[in-house]
Amino acid sequence: MLFYDCATAPSPRRARMFIHEKGLTIETRQIDLTTKEQLSPAFLAVNPMATVPVLVTDEGEAISENAGIAAYLEAVCPEPPLLGTSPAEKARVQMWNAIVEHQGAMPIAEALRNGNPAMKGRALTGQADVAQIPELAERGLQRTARFFDLLNRRLSDSPYLAGDNFSYADITAFVMVDFARVIKMRLSEDHPAAQDWHARVKARPSAAA
Amino acid sequence: MLFYDCATAPSPRRARMFIHEKGLTIETRQIDLTTKEQLSPAFLAVNPMATVPVLVTDEGEAISENAGIAAYLEAVCPEPPLLGTSPAEKARVQMWNAIVEHQGAMPIAEALRNGNPAMKGRALTGQADVAQIPELAERGLQRTARFFDLLNRRLSDSPYLAGDNFSYADITAFVMVDFARVIKMRLSEDHPAAQDWHARVKARPSAAA
Repeated sequence: MLFYDCATAPSPRRARMFIHEKGLTIETRQIDLTTKEQLSPAFLAVNPMATVPVLVTDEGEAISENAGIAAYLEAVCPEPPLLGTSPAEKARVQMWNAIVEHQGAMPIAEALRNGNPAMKGRALTGQADVAQIPELAERGLQRTARFFDLLNRRLSDSPYLAGDNFSYADITAFVMVDFARVIKMRLSEDHPAAQDWHARVKARPSAAA
Repeated sequence: MLFYDCATAPSPRRARMFIHEKGLTIETRQIDLTTKEQLSPAFLAVNPMATVPVLVTDEGEAISENAGIAAYLEAVCPEPPLLGTSPAEKARVQMWNAIVEHQGAMPIAEALRNGNPAMKGRALTGQADVAQIPELAERGLQRTARFFDLLNRRLSDSPYLAGDNFSYADITAFVMVDFARVIKMRLSEDHPAAQDWHARVKARPSAAA
């Protein structure tokens, strides 16, 4: 397998943590988003969506999107399970992952990409240039604050997002909480359950992968 | 099980099609989004995210988000498979579903929710009121046109989004293409492969569910 990564970006960090949790070591190539290498003809031939992460299988198939990479790795390497084992747990993993993507990953990305002068014309991933919308940056900040509250409520009831076991949903949420530093948002003492969870996830070796 | 639906909305239609494809019949309650029933205390007690679809399991657990409902139903009722069978197919189903959600479902929702006077204050789902951003409506229309082109390119190479078999990714894309009528966007003769695919999916009994 071959893994296309970018050490500084949140989406490939999700895949990197997933790979590490599975105990896998996969040959890795860095794509430098700061020089727009994702828009190079060589990389677009791998993934025309111009996004990392991408996992190329031993059969030469390029899998993009964290959802695709997680499904593939869980199927070829079931242990330890990260997508749940019982039907209800599988459902909760996907449910919480989707909630975190919509309520956390999206607003954080909107705040950064629409508010940072360095991201001008790059308000969305992909080949096409997309203009910034300043109101979307402001909305993203407000929604990120609500996302932290939501995480804290859930983690007051449950040790991990999908229940008793660490999962893919925790990886997504942990990476997004960390990445929110780029928009100067951090968990605070108003979020004790989320802070405790964050410390437990940060202590996992995969957090440094 | 108990299924919370809204007959006119696209997200619950995805779950409805999935349930029908599985050959299941599940007791259903309609939530009337036109009267904001999703914000009623009774429904918020079921799903505090204020979204449909929701599937309540026989154990009384409420599963929201299509990703959660699909994972649950595939686990309790594996046949016919809608999330793929081989590792590569499972990966392609999730990859294409994610691409369709980001490149299709999101821009269509943004165009509608930020452009329709009847959606004022409802630019996003959830309990909080969110103001419309007119530029996001305009961007949504432009992105929907690119989404149709993307669908057509993929379906020129493959009978279904994830390969040879109909899947969850096709359900998501089919429902979104149909729903785009609310922003006056339709597949055209520029999208012959996507039109052919749309006709094949529309002929499935689940499309009328």
